[in-house]
Amino acid sequence: MTAKVKAACHAAEAGIPVVITSGFTADGILRVLQGQRVGTLFHRDAHLWYSVQVKEHGACKMAVSARDASRVLQGLSSVDRRKILLDVADALEANEERIRKENEIDVYIAKETRISEALISRLMLKPGKISDLAKSLRVLADINDPIGQVVKRTEISDGLILEKTTCPLGVLLIIFESRPDALVQIASLAIRSGNGLLLKGGKEAARSNAVLHKVIVEALPKSVGPELIGLVTSRDEIPDLLKLDDVIDLVIPRGSNKLVSEIKESTKIPVLGHADGVCHVYVDKAADLDMAKRIVLDAKTDYPAVCNAMETLLVHEALMKTGGLNELILALETAGVRLYGGTKASDLLKLPKAISFHHEYGSMACTVEIVKDVLEAINHIHEHGSAHTDCIVTEDRDVADVFLCRVDSAAVFHNASTRFCDGARFGLGAEVGISTSRIHARGPVGVEGLLTTRWLLRGTGQVVNGDHGITYTHKDCPLNYRNETSKNLDVANGGSSVVPSSHTDLANGCDLKT
Amino acid sequence: MTAKVKAACHAAEAGIPVVITSGFTADGILRVLQGQRVGTLFHRDAHLWYSVQVKEHGACKMAVSARDASRVLQGLSSVDRRKILLDVADALEANEERIRKENEIDVYIAKETRISEALISRLMLKPGKISDLAKSLRVLADINDPIGQVVKRTEISDGLILEKTTCPLGVLLIIFESRPDALVQIASLAIRSGNGLLLKGGKEAARSNAVLHKVIVEALPKSVGPELIGLVTSRDEIPDLLKLDDVIDLVIPRGSNKLVSEIKESTKIPVLGHADGVCHVYVDKAADLDMAKRIVLDAKTDYPAVCNAMETLLVHEALMKTGGLNELILALETAGVRLYGGTKASDLLKLPKAISFHHEYGSMACTVEIVKDVLEAINHIHEHGSAHTDCIVTEDRDVADVFLCRVDSAAVFHNASTRFCDGARFGLGAEVGISTSRIHARGPVGVEGLLTTRWLLRGTGQVVNGDHGITYTHKDCPLNYRNETSKNLDVANGGSSVVPSSHTDLANGCDLKT
Repeated sequence: MTAKVKAACHAAEAGIPVVITSGFTADGILRVLQGQRVGTLFHRDAHLWYSVQVKEHGACKMAVSARDASRVLQGLSSVDRRKILLDVADALEANEERIRKENEIDVYIAKETRISEALISRLMLKPGKISDLAKSLRVLADINDPIGQVVKRTEISDGLILEKTTCPLGVLLIIFESRPDALVQIASLAIRSGNGLLLKGGKEAARSNAVLHKVIVEALPKSVGPELIGLVTSRDEIPDLLKLDDVIDLVIPRGSNKLVSEIKESTKIPVLGHADGVCHVYVDKAADLDMAKRIVLDAKTDYPAVCNAMETLLVHEALMKTGGLNELILALETAGVRLYGGTKASDLLKLPKAISFHHEYGSMACTVEIVKDVLEAINHIHEHGSAHTDCIVTEDRDVADVFLCRVDSAAVFHNASTRFCDGARFGLGAEVGISTSRIHARGPVGVEGLLTTRWLLRGTGQVVNGDHGITYTHKDCPLNYRNETSKNLDVANGGSSVVPSSHTDLANGCDLKT
Repeated sequence: MTAKVKAACHAAEAGIPVVITSGFTADGILRVLQGQRVGTLFHRDAHLWYSVQVKEHGACKMAVSARDASRVLQGLSSVDRRKILLDVADALEANEERIRKENEIDVYIAKETRISEALISRLMLKPGKISDLAKSLRVLADINDPIGQVVKRTEISDGLILEKTTCPLGVLLIIFESRPDALVQIASLAIRSGNGLLLKGGKEAARSNAVLHKVIVEALPKSVGPELIGLVTSRDEIPDLLKLDDVIDLVIPRGSNKLVSEIKESTKIPVLGHADGVCHVYVDKAADLDMAKRIVLDAKTDYPAVCNAMETLLVHEALMKTGGLNELILALETAGVRLYGGTKASDLLKLPKAISFHHEYGSMACTVEIVKDVLEAINHIHEHGSAHTDCIVTEDRDVADVFLCRVDSAAVFHNASTRFCDGARFGLGAEVGISTSRIHARGPVGVEGLLTTRWLLRGTGQVVNGDHGITYTHKDCPLNYRNETSKNLDVANGGSSVVPSSHTDLANGCDLKT
């Protein structure tokens, strides 16, 4: 193999492209000649060839175009980006009839194919839904522009000012199931945060998604172009998209645990989401028992199918003697919850054994186990949980603090239901998802999860020169501070003679925040 | 295949573990029986089996132990974590003789095997180096504790307070080359940020690394244990470690571009680093030419081998007529820089053609190209750059702002050398690395790149109850605000009667910041 690779490198250096591919597939060479990406390409400009090839393919071309359009979008002024959201809101209302007709056909077909009632209810755009969506777009238009915010400002040296500013991630791939209103919410978040977007919705909602997508991209300004938001219609294109880790920056699957796990398994692009939500409530010996019952019931029964519902109840062993354990069990059983026991609890309470401690029922069922104390509870959570949301119920402030400090989960609660773990309830505005990853964003994620930062440095000719070029000051500056070199910044928004007129919109848009 | 999988699921549900593996390898079954991870394991507790198997392997066991120890470390008080750093500093000084002897042997062997002078110089711990390292440990001990900082505080409802607080990422895998002092710096950053750590250093520095590692872990308190910092000695263990995306949270390769690329290719764990640094300086028609020469020379020649050195010089076409282009070329050639041209520049200036615009020379050489205006420069940078650091030299504030706003790189500079893109020069303290990823951290990364956040919610029994359980207030609270339910928090640090005495250290350590 080494000899082959060396030969390929020599040829490539001389400008002759070489593909090395497996001899075991009969059609390997034919497929290469048809322009398919088979084997390994050797050429000094291979990274560019790759982009060119990519641009020739459907879904992949979409990703590249979305990035280009997003770069234009982030160059617009805050005012212009706000106007896009308002235009989209107006377009939705103006096309309500058209949207509802397509949605009715989707619902009709779904009923014919005997899809479950629950799915049909999620699929249907109920009366008033379109104007609700338009309303939420107008709310989003009026929030502070998330892009271009200065989060840190430092004077490096006299006249050399460093700023860390927020900017879009780039291109998002969002895969969602069933609910067509999700398309509008996601698209509006992407526009607000300046990101390009590829959307893949559920098959059942194909017509609704198509018309919503059309209405939205038609409302985008020409300078940005409809390519900002691509609608992927075939499931077959997903594997190709998941390979584009140099063009797509973040994948957000919104759907079943299975969907999230499958996507995490099959891509190197960072995935924002949670594969499972095995949430625990630990009832301490010092718990207020009425409160414990209230929290445990809410955590399990308020919405048993969601990720922030309780799946395991851990009870301090002291509550066996006081009768507290029995009260909790009775409350759950009365509410219709099927109980399964860990080793200790199944013996003691004659419960059927739980399949595994790492089990998400997603229904009116849960696991119960007895623990010696808060530390055993913490160990249990670390060993069997999914680091999503875990809760302690206790009146003992010290024990609560041990739990809050040591449980290594995205959300850790004291005396409050696990169901609160949600972007809207946390006051984050629109929720992008809940992340159990530890990188980038964790727990419920709002629009800030769609942003990254850039470092902007403005100087007056400073050089490093072996670190003798300047005298470092490293002074933190207030975020509303601007140094002399930038005092004319407002003028920048007034247009620029250097920029060809066809690009004037963009040049005007550079409203670096002050 | 479906039938096989169904059968395996049935058996697994009944408690019988099943492995499905390829029939094409002769020894598949034998390897399964030897406990190797071949094929797909079906069992209801498969995720636990996996951990057990992992724990039986050398390097993998290290990762799991490091996570356990890191959980203890982050449970310690800020005071205790500070003391660890001071103890390590003392231990280094106390063992200086022992460390220097081992280092001398490494250097001796390196000289025998005719390793380059440059590498030997990096390998050698020069006199005073140990006390310098100890000094920087003491500085790090005295910075604000990065863990447990409240970055956001919200009143969700009356008596229900949400805090977003910083916490360690978990376990870091750092792969570094040659320089043994890097081991001390990395270990001290990990301790400061509460992370577990696996270290893999260069073969040439094996003895130096071993003794430094030993001295450091011997100085760790027993409660945390020496497993906090694992030293991986064999290169063969790296592939196994790179598979542990459920135990290792971040990989930081510190070394050549090749090393970074290889690691990015072979793992699903997020990688903090930059595979290449193709940095541009664009000299605009409105540039101060003396300043342009100064910046271009510094960007290319101050340290040509590093990632923030200029690789491509883009020049506005107007400078062809004014003679500015010739001045820049002459300055570079006089300084000994070999020049290669893009299509336009090679014709005009009779320069040899550059191999590719996406080329990192890493030496006293660079590419030159002529562009029409700032927008063509920006397009060139987007198409061929590596989104590391790009600079514009111009006196025209408007053009500068277009460049700063639109260039989509980790660092974008106006009238300052690209060489400033560096953690120390940015005033971030110790540098963890420079990231060209857009997720988690971007550009030079300080200790904050080793942190994530957790959401802590403190209530008084609140439940969601279909969102009728409470009245949402969603008030931003000042970060030094604490509500009634937490006023006794200081007491938490005084110890807890609930926690068994062997764990008292940990319980005392829960110093949630106010």
